[in-house]
Amino acid sequence: MPTKSSRREFLSTAAKVAAGAGLGAAGANLITTQQGRAAPAVPAWPYGYKKLDPEAVRKAAHKWFWDQGRGCSYGAFKGIVETLAEKGLTAYKQVPAEMLIYGAGGMVGWGTFCGALNGAAAAINLIVDKPTADKVIGELVGWYTTAPFPSNESNALAQTHGFAVEKIAKALPQSVAGSPQCHVSVTRWVENSGYKASTIERSERCARLAGDVAAHTVELLNAVADGTFKAEFVLASPMVACVGCHGAGSKQDNVRTKMDCTQCHETNWKHP
Amino acid sequence: MPTKSSRREFLSTAAKVAAGAGLGAAGANLITTQQGRAAPAVPAWPYGYKKLDPEAVRKAAHKWFWDQGRGCSYGAFKGIVETLAEKGLTAYKQVPAEMLIYGAGGMVGWGTFCGALNGAAAAINLIVDKPTADKVIGELVGWYTTAPFPSNESNALAQTHGFAVEKIAKALPQSVAGSPQCHVSVTRWVENSGYKASTIERSERCARLAGDVAAHTVELLNAVADGTFKAEFVLASPMVACVGCHGAGSKQDNVRTKMDCTQCHETNWKHP
Repeated sequence: MPTKSSRREFLSTAAKVAAGAGLGAAGANLITTQQGRAAPAVPAWPYGYKKLDPEAVRKAAHKWFWDQGRGCSYGAFKGIVETLAEKGLTAYKQVPAEMLIYGAGGMVGWGTFCGALNGAAAAINLIVDKPTADKVIGELVGWYTTAPFPSNESNALAQTHGFAVEKIAKALPQSVAGSPQCHVSVTRWVENSGYKASTIERSERCARLAGDVAAHTVELLNAVADGTFKAEFVLASPMVACVGCHGAGSKQDNVRTKMDCTQCHETNWKHP
Repeated sequence: MPTKSSRREFLSTAAKVAAGAGLGAAGANLITTQQGRAAPAVPAWPYGYKKLDPEAVRKAAHKWFWDQGRGCSYGAFKGIVETLAEKGLTAYKQVPAEMLIYGAGGMVGWGTFCGALNGAAAAINLIVDKPTADKVIGELVGWYTTAPFPSNESNALAQTHGFAVEKIAKALPQSVAGSPQCHVSVTRWVENSGYKASTIERSERCARLAGDVAAHTVELLNAVADGTFKAEFVLASPMVACVGCHGAGSKQDNVRTKMDCTQCHETNWKHP
């Protein structure tokens, strides 16, 4: 257990970060076990933030993607929180990154929410309070739907042997998913690249994507820390008409999503 | 920090559970901070399991859903792990349930993976090792696509004033989503029930669903502990033909999902 003074140091650091950035403060409380003995102290949520280098996090998430086949969600989460722990925020060592493994393949292979986004979102939600997390995660997901993956930065790293785990030392073709769904993201890339979904190139594409998502996460969190964060994502243009009839407060009020409707519903699909 | 003997007790309990059930063992390791002081001990992942009463967990998850508007993902996760902590597995107190809040509304309102499933999946992935988690989560998600929500059990609880937080003391209409996606799950229920998405009835439906998902999670984990777990979910029947051309190892090998293709792709949708 840390001494009182070491805990004070951590709190003081977190408070400093929080002061300038609207990030949640961190505290500590002591838990008494059912046996009446003191259990390890649990820092109060949220755990706080120190600005990170996106390029270091890009490389870390890529490396952890390949760790024991644990994949994108574990990779993105661990790439962020372990880098924070290395910066002295030791509270992050108390949350096992393994609990995020399930995100791989859009939730144990179901092809839903991209696992890299899932790992990054869990990290964000651990780092900052709810109002901040809602904004940062919403922006991250929106950015993902419009970004080409793997990024130019990841491709350049691969070409210059900059990744700790080297699978393919060349640039890979890029694609834009238009969706936060793993299935759409993977299938679009397969169609665009000519590589099949079972190839090592597709896995490496997802490893670079995990790095890219983790790196952009810390770019957004750095902006929050600097007080310069701005939400830039806007709904895909066909959505404006859709939401007018189906969104909150509308006549039908029967749909809750920010995904681009037209990817699944063609304009007249199942409409009268 | 627990004494050596209290930690031994925890390990011994976890080992006992693991022995009969193929669950991961739990251990402990000591982390040295960058200042050279000992930080709180972090139990080794996975954290292990003790059989729980599904009805207690159903009520707990429903209660936590309504806690400060934190919703389904936080509710399902906390309903499971806090009940385990109350059973003496104090390691679960070290992971803040707040990190799962983002799952609400299918990931901060994006309408993707149902947040109750997300919270439950994170809990499962914290409790058991990867091979076990893959199976249990896969089965849970598959079950979700075919189950009527809210369950008869939840509706009966509401009618008998059995929930700690009482919003609506009557049964609510049911629907089957056919999908693990929040958007599909919510829209189908709205269409089936006649209640709009913005109503308190829809929120209470999701609170009961969070309870139902958490309860079924512990039913599955109890079966693992008893050595009676069987994966029963099979792909929706139209999927067999789809996967034959698009799945792993197929000619096109361009799709990774277990969702029912026909919900978005009608039979001839964008096919030549």
